[in-house]
Amino acid sequence: MEGKLVKIGLLGMGNIGTGSYMVLEKEREGIRARTGLDFEFVKILEKFVDRPRPVKVPLEKFTQDPAEIFEDPEIDVVVELLGGLHPAIDFMIEAMNHGKHVVTANKAAVADSYELLRDAAERNHVMFRYEASVGGAIPCLTSIQNALLANEYEEIYGILNGTTNYILTKMSEDGLDYETALAQAKEKGFAEPNPTADVEGIDVANKLSILLSLCFGVRVRPADIPTTGITGVTKAAIEEAKARGNVIKLVANARYEGGKLVYSVKPTELPNDHMLAAVKNELNALWLKTTEAQELMFYGKGAGPLPTGSAIMGDVIAIGCALAKNAAYDIVVPGGVR
Amino acid sequence: MEGKLVKIGLLGMGNIGTGSYMVLEKEREGIRARTGLDFEFVKILEKFVDRPRPVKVPLEKFTQDPAEIFEDPEIDVVVELLGGLHPAIDFMIEAMNHGKHVVTANKAAVADSYELLRDAAERNHVMFRYEASVGGAIPCLTSIQNALLANEYEEIYGILNGTTNYILTKMSEDGLDYETALAQAKEKGFAEPNPTADVEGIDVANKLSILLSLCFGVRVRPADIPTTGITGVTKAAIEEAKARGNVIKLVANARYEGGKLVYSVKPTELPNDHMLAAVKNELNALWLKTTEAQELMFYGKGAGPLPTGSAIMGDVIAIGCALAKNAAYDIVVPGGVR
Repeated sequence: MEGKLVKIGLLGMGNIGTGSYMVLEKEREGIRARTGLDFEFVKILEKFVDRPRPVKVPLEKFTQDPAEIFEDPEIDVVVELLGGLHPAIDFMIEAMNHGKHVVTANKAAVADSYELLRDAAERNHVMFRYEASVGGAIPCLTSIQNALLANEYEEIYGILNGTTNYILTKMSEDGLDYETALAQAKEKGFAEPNPTADVEGIDVANKLSILLSLCFGVRVRPADIPTTGITGVTKAAIEEAKARGNVIKLVANARYEGGKLVYSVKPTELPNDHMLAAVKNELNALWLKTTEAQELMFYGKGAGPLPTGSAIMGDVIAIGCALAKNAAYDIVVPGGVR
Repeated sequence: MEGKLVKIGLLGMGNIGTGSYMVLEKEREGIRARTGLDFEFVKILEKFVDRPRPVKVPLEKFTQDPAEIFEDPEIDVVVELLGGLHPAIDFMIEAMNHGKHVVTANKAAVADSYELLRDAAERNHVMFRYEASVGGAIPCLTSIQNALLANEYEEIYGILNGTTNYILTKMSEDGLDYETALAQAKEKGFAEPNPTADVEGIDVANKLSILLSLCFGVRVRPADIPTTGITGVTKAAIEEAKARGNVIKLVANARYEGGKLVYSVKPTELPNDHMLAAVKNELNALWLKTTEAQELMFYGKGAGPLPTGSAIMGDVIAIGCALAKNAAYDIVVPGGVR
């Protein structure tokens, strides 16, 4: 870090990369006023330089060579938004091996290689943050890793995917069948052209894997989480639930049953008066029961370029503030699963 | 900090002090597993040594002389739970002047003397944390001061007092009048024998003052916040609101109106489908609209010895972890209002 400027290297400028860039452009003045620091994306690894974007990015920032980012001694923080496992994981570790602090929104990579990434961060004395990987803009992980450190977790229930929550809300409130609701979600930009990872619950299983590490101190790979998506949820099932005073949500759950931790991702009937039942459309929420804080819920936008960019930049700014105080650290000890 | 043991001095062992002590007793093993650190309340300033408490405290921990805490070079963190303005504020500053990190739940003191306390922390290079002062166990301040740093705030709506929310819920759901609901709240321990600070909105005005500093960067003393409590809310008003599809809550609000920041604490009609309408009984929540993260809500227990103790110990543990990494700092710059 040079003077008061924190330099960021960006890996991948798709929707979330563009969102993060836009958040910084829009909020630079306020961030400076609040922290006394300037932040700048200085180099961007991205093939599609000419893709139309809602923000102007100087051409000279783009590179096709990741080494130009890893080996730039001026870059303090690397933001990884390539998605997928490889080369994302390799690039994050490579960046840490070069002394860069790393921020990511990549739930699949964190869920798959949590230990590898944590170890690389500890070994290189760098900060590794991934608030955006669970719940988008919602500060769940920051809360779990800071304010709630005195607690053990008894149960967690999450609505952690905007696509499926949008589809289920439309099926329930407008009486649509699954296919029609999915088509509407695609039209509104709440579902990808290929929605498999969302509707089959894979995205949520990645997020639950991360929460199992942070809340319960156990490592469970996403493939080992019993997972059922929403493609089998019928209009009839939703109507029957409604008659019972319930609503069907795609729920990531972990709780103790007879002293044993059980976990799953599946369509679940929640009573209408449960706080999570009020979480509609593309919104997300995480409901927790802990030993001391007791009942908690965090609610907000689980996806979208600006909300996710908010979480990415929140992590980057926190790292910048730590660097400015010469105090970069994570509240995690080597050896601890959290 | 000596080895891996963080020593805490406690000012005041009423309900919240006892709750904080109990949280540490209950959670010590887990905290050690998660952080690699031990924590111990080593000295306690408290007149009522013999008060019956649900936890056994060795008599030799008690002192009647605050200097024994300030001047003990082994004490790392001072937790202030005396309540009220004086000597609480003076003691916190004295502790910081002696190089102690300070944690408090004292909303009145933070709201009254925010600059003094922040300045003392900056001047002495110590950490000053007060998560428990707003929303009890709910990690609102941690979220605002970390994950949401890239955002400006557009509006905030808070249900930030458990006593009044309990009374209004009982009036609305069980058709009770104000006096009967208040009596019931006292019986259940949700209202103090003298409930003035709660029912007149003074407690909430203190919390809104703190949020105005953190979210909007303006200092407004609680006495300068237009404040109306719930003593004038009638059964009839609640029924009329209900007929309009609304519910009456005591709401702390700040928002821009014609470019000007306006704020108040007052009984407010919220539509039944607003997330805050689902916040019932003694539960609290803070609903925020920000520029990038957009809509957010944090929900949980706003009071009670263990939930508040969770927030207190969360702050203490975060400080301990920073000390262990030789990295004590707050994400706040001198001069910045936040």
